[in-house]
Amino acid sequence: MNENFRKYLVEFIGTFFLVFTIGAVTRIGVPGVIPAVAIGAVLMVMVYAGGFISGGHYNPAVSLAAVVRGALPAYQWVPYALSQILGGIVAAFVVNYLAGEVPDASTMLFSMPALITGEFIFTFALCYVVLLTATSREVEGNSYYGLAIGSTVMTGVFAVGGICVAAFNPAVAISCIVMHTICCLKIALVTILVNLLAGLAAGVTYKAVNCR
Amino acid sequence: MNENFRKYLVEFIGTFFLVFTIGAVTRIGVPGVIPAVAIGAVLMVMVYAGGFISGGHYNPAVSLAAVVRGALPAYQWVPYALSQILGGIVAAFVVNYLAGEVPDASTMLFSMPALITGEFIFTFALCYVVLLTATSREVEGNSYYGLAIGSTVMTGVFAVGGICVAAFNPAVAISCIVMHTICCLKIALVTILVNLLAGLAAGVTYKAVNCR
Amino acid sequence: MNENFRKYLVEFIGTFFLVFTIGAVTRIGVPGVIPAVAIGAVLMVMVYAGGFISGGHYNPAVSLAAVVRGALPAYQWVPYALSQILGGIVAAFVVNYLAGEVPDASTMLFSMPALITGEFIFTFALCYVVLLTATSREVEGNSYYGLAIGSTVMTGVFAVGGICVAAFNPAVAISCIVMHTICCLKIALVTILVNLLAGLAAGVTYKAVNCR
Amino acid sequence: MNENFRKYLVEFIGTFFLVFTIGAVTRIGVPGVIPAVAIGAVLMVMVYAGGFISGGHYNPAVSLAAVVRGALPAYQWVPYALSQILGGIVAAFVVNYLAGEVPDASTMLFSMPALITGEFIFTFALCYVVLLTATSREVEGNSYYGLAIGSTVMTGVFAVGGICVAAFNPAVAISCIVMHTICCLKIALVTILVNLLAGLAAGVTYKAVNCR
Repeated sequence: MNENFRKYLVEFIGTFFLVFTIGAVTRIGVPGVIPAVAIGAVLMVMVYAGGFISGGHYNPAVSLAAVVRGALPAYQWVPYALSQILGGIVAAFVVNYLAGEVPDASTMLFSMPALITGEFIFTFALCYVVLLTATSREVEGNSYYGLAIGSTVMTGVFAVGGICVAAFNPAVAISCIVMHTICCLKIALVTILVNLLAGLAAGVTYKAVNCR
Repeated sequence: MNENFRKYLVEFIGTFFLVFTIGAVTRIGVPGVIPAVAIGAVLMVMVYAGGFISGGHYNPAVSLAAVVRGALPAYQWVPYALSQILGGIVAAFVVNYLAGEVPDASTMLFSMPALITGEFIFTFALCYVVLLTATSREVEGNSYYGLAIGSTVMTGVFAVGGICVAAFNPAVAISCIVMHTICCLKIALVTILVNLLAGLAAGVTYKAVNCR
Repeated sequence: MNENFRKYLVEFIGTFFLVFTIGAVTRIGVPGVIPAVAIGAVLMVMVYAGGFISGGHYNPAVSLAAVVRGALPAYQWVPYALSQILGGIVAAFVVNYLAGEVPDASTMLFSMPALITGEFIFTFALCYVVLLTATSREVEGNSYYGLAIGSTVMTGVFAVGGICVAAFNPAVAISCIVMHTICCLKIALVTILVNLLAGLAAGVTYKAVNCR
Repeated sequence: MNENFRKYLVEFIGTFFLVFTIGAVTRIGVPGVIPAVAIGAVLMVMVYAGGFISGGHYNPAVSLAAVVRGALPAYQWVPYALSQILGGIVAAFVVNYLAGEVPDASTMLFSMPALITGEFIFTFALCYVVLLTATSREVEGNSYYGLAIGSTVMTGVFAVGGICVAAFNPAVAISCIVMHTICCLKIALVTILVNLLAGLAAGVTYKAVNCR
C-alpha cells in the first residue's frame, strides 16, 4: 500500500480511538479521576502503536509543531489534519450512537481569558514534549516518548480541565461539536485557534532549546 | 523442557493471573477506578514477564491476530487457546473458592448493538496495539510494549465497561461463565465471536499499515 | 567502599523506603486507591534506583527466588535478608514516631486458607516477574523491569488486600509487627513462611519456563 | 543559541510547568488522588523532555546533589537555581491570576519534627533516585529515569503530604509563598533548608553506594 496512505490511515485510526475514548468517558459518563487517566492512556497507546509509521500525532496542532521543527514536510500538514479530523468525527458519531441522551453543554461556560490561558499552556506543553521526546536525534530509540506524551495530556486535563475545554487538539475540539460536549461554536473556534498558536510557539521554542 | 511446552506453560500462568485479578477485583469487590487499573496492570506485568518466551498473548483473539499477521504459526493457535482457557478456568475456580457468595449477574444486561460495538472496538484496539508494538521489526527491543498493551485494556474497561462485558478476550469470557460474572450464555457467545472477529480485523489492518 | 557493603546498603535503603511508605499510607492514613499505588510506585522507584547495584530485591522471598534461579550466591541470602529486615525495622520505628496513635490491629483477622492463598499467589507472581524481567539474559538492558515489579505488588494489594496481609515480603511482615498493623504473631509467621515458599516455587517455575 | 542559555531556558520551562500544575491542582482545586498523580506526572514529563539538554532538575536541591556527585559543575548551581526559582515564580503568578480566591493557608500548620522528617526523607529519596537513574554510567541510555523520578515525588505526596509541605524542592517552596499555599515564612525557610540538606546527604550517599 502507498506509503502516504498508510500514514493517513494510522492517523485516522489513532484519532478515532482518542476521540472515542474522550466521548465514552465524558458522555457515557464516568466520574472523578477516570477521564484524565483514560484519555492520557489512549493517547500514549496510540502514539506507541503508530509512532514509527506516521509520527503518531493525532492532533493538527502537533503536526503544525512538527512542520515548524522540520519533522514533517509542510505539504503533509493538510492531509494529516484531514485524516485526524475525519477519524475524530467518525468516532464522535459512534459515541452519539452509543450514548443516547444529548448532554446539556450550555452550562460548560468558561471565562475567555482562563480558557485561552489553559488551552495555550497545555497545548504548548504537549507539542514541546512531542518534539523533544519523539523527534530529537539525541534521544532516538527511547521507549518513553509515548508515556511522556500521554501523561502530558492527562496532567493537562487534571490541571486545567475545570477552566477550559482541555482539548489541546483542534481535531478533538471539532469532534466535541459533533458530540455536543462543547457549549458553542465561539468557544470551539477560540480553542482551535489557541491550540494551533501553541503548536507554533512550541515549534519555535524547540529550535531555541535544541538547535540540532 | 520442551520448547513448546514452555510457551504453553507461560500462556497458562499469565492467563491464570489475568483472570484471577479480574475475579478478585470484580467479585471479592473493590470500587471505582481500581478494576480497570488492576486488570491493565496485571496484563502489562504478564506481557513483560512472558513476552519473550511465548509472545505473552493470554488471549485467543490476540493469538488469532498474531496468526493473521504471521507472528504465530497457524497450528499453534489451538494449543495456545487451550492453555489460555485452561489457565483462566483454574483461576476462576480459585476465585469461586475465595469469594463465597455467588453474584447476581442477571442484572448485567447489555443492549446487544452496544455490546458488540464496545467489545469490537477495544478488542480491535488491543490486537492492533499488540501487533504494532510487539511484533513490528521496526521497534524490536522496545521497552514499552507491555505498558501499551496493558493500558489499552485499562482504557477499554474505563471507556466501554458500562456497555459490555469488557472482556476483549474469549478466555476471559469463558472464565466469567465459571465465575458467574456474565449474565447468560448468549452474551458470552456473542462476546467470544466478536472478540475473534476483532482479532481478525486487526490482523488485516496491521498488514495495511505496516507491510514489512 | 567494599562491593558487598554497597549492596547491603542499597538493600537497606530500598527496604527502608518501601516500609516507610507502607507505614505512612496505612498508619498516617490515606484512603481507597492510594495505598496500592503508592506501595507499587515506591518499589518500582527503588528497583530502578538500586537494581544495577544489588539487584534491587528489598525482600527475602525475592532473594530466595534469586538464589534458586542462580542469580544470587547462596551465602549472600543471610546478609541480604538481614539488611532488608533491618531497613524495614528502622522505617517502622520512624513511622511509629510520626504516627502517634497505635492502630487496633485486632480487627484485621483473615481466614487462614484465604490468607495463605492470597499471599502465595501474589508472592509467586512477584518473584516470577522479578526473575523473568530482571535476570533473564534474553531481555537484558530492558527499561521495564521496575515498572513490572512495582505493578505486580500494586495489583496484589488491589486483588487480595482484603483477604490477607498483602505483604508478599517477610521483611514487610516483620516490620508490620513493629508498626502494630498485623494482628498477631501467628499471622505474621504464616505470612513469612508462605512468602518464602512462594519464592522457592517461583525459582523452580523460572527454571521450567526459561532454561537459559 | 548559547549552550548554557538553552539549559537555563529548559530549567525555567520545566519548573514553570511543575509549579503551574502544583498550583492548579491545589488552588484551582481537585480532590483525593489527583494532586499526587498530576504532580508526579508533570515532573516525569518535563524530565523526559529536557533531561538530555539540562539534566532536567527543576529543583535546586537536585542540582545541589548533582554538584556533590560531580554531574553538574559547581559554578552552574546559582544560574540553575535562579532559572528554577524564576520559572516557579512566574507560574505562581499565572496560578494567582487564574484562581481568584486567596486560600487560607493559616490552617496548614505542621508539627516541626514531622515536617523536617517528611521533607528530609522524600527529598533524599528524590535526589538519590535522580543520581542513580539519571547520572550513573552503568544505566546510561535507560528509558525509565523520568518515570522513576516522577513516581518518587508522587509517592512522597501520598506518604507525607499530610505532615509537611511536600515540596521536596526549594523552588516549589518559594513559589508556594507567592501562591499563598504555605502558612508562614518560617515553614518555608525550614522546608528550603531541609530540602538542600537532603540533597547534600543524597550526593554523599550516592558516592557510598556507587563509586564509579
